[in-house]
Amino acid sequence: MKIIGIADTTFSRYDMAKAAIDELKKNATGIRIERYTVPGIKDLPVAAKKLIEEKNCDIVMTLGMPGKMPIDKQCAHEASLGLIAVQILTNRHIIEVFVHEDEAKDEKELAWLAERRTREHALNVINLLFHPEKLQRQAGTGQRQGFEDAGPL
Amino acid sequence: MKIIGIADTTFSRYDMAKAAIDELKKNATGIRIERYTVPGIKDLPVAAKKLIEEKNCDIVMTLGMPGKMPIDKQCAHEASLGLIAVQILTNRHIIEVFVHEDEAKDEKELAWLAERRTREHALNVINLLFHPEKLQRQAGTGQRQGFEDAGPL
Amino acid sequence: MKIIGIADTTFSRYDMAKAAIDELKKNATGIRIERYTVPGIKDLPVAAKKLIEEKNCDIVMTLGMPGKMPIDKQCAHEASLGLIAVQILTNRHIIEVFVHEDEAKDEKELAWLAERRTREHALNVINLLFHPEKLQRQAGTGQRQGFEDAGPL
Amino acid sequence: MKIIGIADTTFSRYDMAKAAIDELKKNATGIRIERYTVPGIKDLPVAAKKLIEEKNCDIVMTLGMPGKMPIDKQCAHEASLGLIAVQILTNRHIIEVFVHEDEAKDEKELAWLAERRTREHALNVINLLFHPEKLQRQAGTGQRQGFEDAGPL
Amino acid sequence: MKIIGIADTTFSRYDMAKAAIDELKKNATGIRIERYTVPGIKDLPVAAKKLIEEKNCDIVMTLGMPGKMPIDKQCAHEASLGLIAVQILTNRHIIEVFVHEDEAKDEKELAWLAERRTREHALNVINLLFHPEKLQRQAGTGQRQGFEDAGPL
Repeated sequence: MKIIGIADTTFSRYDMAKAAIDELKKNATGIRIERYTVPGIKDLPVAAKKLIEEKNCDIVMTLGMPGKMPIDKQCAHEASLGLIAVQILTNRHIIEVFVHEDEAKDEKELAWLAERRTREHALNVINLLFHPEKLQRQAGTGQRQGFEDAGPL
Repeated sequence: MKIIGIADTTFSRYDMAKAAIDELKKNATGIRIERYTVPGIKDLPVAAKKLIEEKNCDIVMTLGMPGKMPIDKQCAHEASLGLIAVQILTNRHIIEVFVHEDEAKDEKELAWLAERRTREHALNVINLLFHPEKLQRQAGTGQRQGFEDAGPL
Repeated sequence: MKIIGIADTTFSRYDMAKAAIDELKKNATGIRIERYTVPGIKDLPVAAKKLIEEKNCDIVMTLGMPGKMPIDKQCAHEASLGLIAVQILTNRHIIEVFVHEDEAKDEKELAWLAERRTREHALNVINLLFHPEKLQRQAGTGQRQGFEDAGPL
Repeated sequence: MKIIGIADTTFSRYDMAKAAIDELKKNATGIRIERYTVPGIKDLPVAAKKLIEEKNCDIVMTLGMPGKMPIDKQCAHEASLGLIAVQILTNRHIIEVFVHEDEAKDEKELAWLAERRTREHALNVINLLFHPEKLQRQAGTGQRQGFEDAGPL
Repeated sequence: MKIIGIADTTFSRYDMAKAAIDELKKNATGIRIERYTVPGIKDLPVAAKKLIEEKNCDIVMTLGMPGKMPIDKQCAHEASLGLIAVQILTNRHIIEVFVHEDEAKDEKELAWLAERRTREHALNVINLLFHPEKLQRQAGTGQRQGFEDAGPL
């Protein structure tokens, strides 16, 4: 039994956790999900650490949707640094799924992107836990989560 | 009994701690508040750490009002990184309530924003402590503290 | 007896330590001062850590005067992050007194600013050590060190 | 027997690990390679830490290909900081081989650059492990990995 | 007997270590030098940590010559943050001697600057180890390493 933590935010404008949980359950057995919702992305690093240390999660997905203002970009940067620090301190992977509001041309595409990136990263989570050899076969092939793959050179 | 730390600054131009304490007391019982005032926002990370480790706070609110100059933005960035580090080291949440002077069009709106953002984040603190299920119900709904919610996509 | 560390630099163009020591001695009894001079501001974080851990300082003032070039700004940023890290690791306050060369319109004002900001922060040090209630009374009142206070909204 | 970890990504558009492994095997005996593929460069710091602590790697190469958008640059910066942190915590070298998509004028040159930079850094890895005196002889000579050496002044 | 670590790079275009060693030996007795050459400046933090913890160095000089591209500036920033972290973790000074390629008007001046800055910082190393009172006498006097001193205000 592997425990997968999902940390998400009330700031986000799309229920990425729902997509993550659905995709995880469709593609893996022998998993249990621990969900933890916090206000914003800067609350995600400690949420992930608590999921790992207090809920024994083997891996964590952190789901966030930074706004388009410079301050939002800075918050995302700070959150990312914190998430890397938590991984280093715990030796556990945290898959950061951030969808920036200015990545999409309108709200409809933004929702589509949030759904799809989350689902594709859920598969990465499963592969990291159960099928590392699948990731190795994809090494250097220009995978992207959300928009189209860049593909190999 | 939960202990809530409140760290604020003499640099700030609005008494955000007063708003925080009032809102916390109105909306929760079984709490005790520990307040700690420091000169500026870069003093907040160690203040929060001391509140957690020396005053046994279960959670901390840090209240600050960065100025509008580039150096102020950089100080806020440094403080934020420190606050994330403290959370990671202690496994406790620190809710950062920063109101940037250039977020508002005039001093009146700035005071309004400081008051309102502080009060809305005080509710986040209570939910993190006592009602995590309320936060989960708000996941992905575009909550904002201060100005109007962005709402779900 | 409280021990106050003062770390300063040979890079700085004004003897801020002299001002700090004078102000501290005028306004507090029962203190001892440990001074440590290093080449530049990036040497201050370890100097502060050594003052705390090897000289048992209860609090440290770090005095620096970053130049006006982009590289100087970056050095100040790096030093500030280091100083925050030291505080987090030691649970001791470090009051950073940095005077940027481009904050003043000429050398005369720069000297005045360095002197005054140092002295005002020396009072913050004393208040943090002996009179935390004085800082609390100033919370949210827009205090500034050096130039005129911004005042409350 | 020295163990060399190789962490690479599915995001990358070129199989840099293949080049690394080939070059390492051609130039050293008494080595064993542990490979670990993760989704993106921000997953590399914890991958490297796990290779060092869970797979006993003596040194790690991390291979990545950041995109050309500002967010990609920021991810690379965050990954680099994480990789430095892992090195500091483990006292092991991690040779970061990042090839930025905008370093090359077209896809063909980008592939050439990825291949060549990886191979040249593989030699650095061997020298760090087995021939530190060779690196010392090259000190101050303007070595570059990929494009032409800058040479000594 | 004090042990001085010198970490330098093959990326650098000038043999700064030779200048450092010559200046150290001319100005101090009772020292031993440990040299460690790595590929680039981002390899310096762990090199310095290893010199301190594995070679028992009392202090370390790190010598580097960042290029003039934005990516080079970012690497220098990352290296500097790592060097500060190592100092904080070990309570040992690391004197960072970085000469940016765009600081000089041509290659001849760049070589002169690298030589001179290294030598002047070698004296700082000696003073930190043996003559802290000399640094204190220079406090606030606007010392610079390489180009002309700024002097006191």
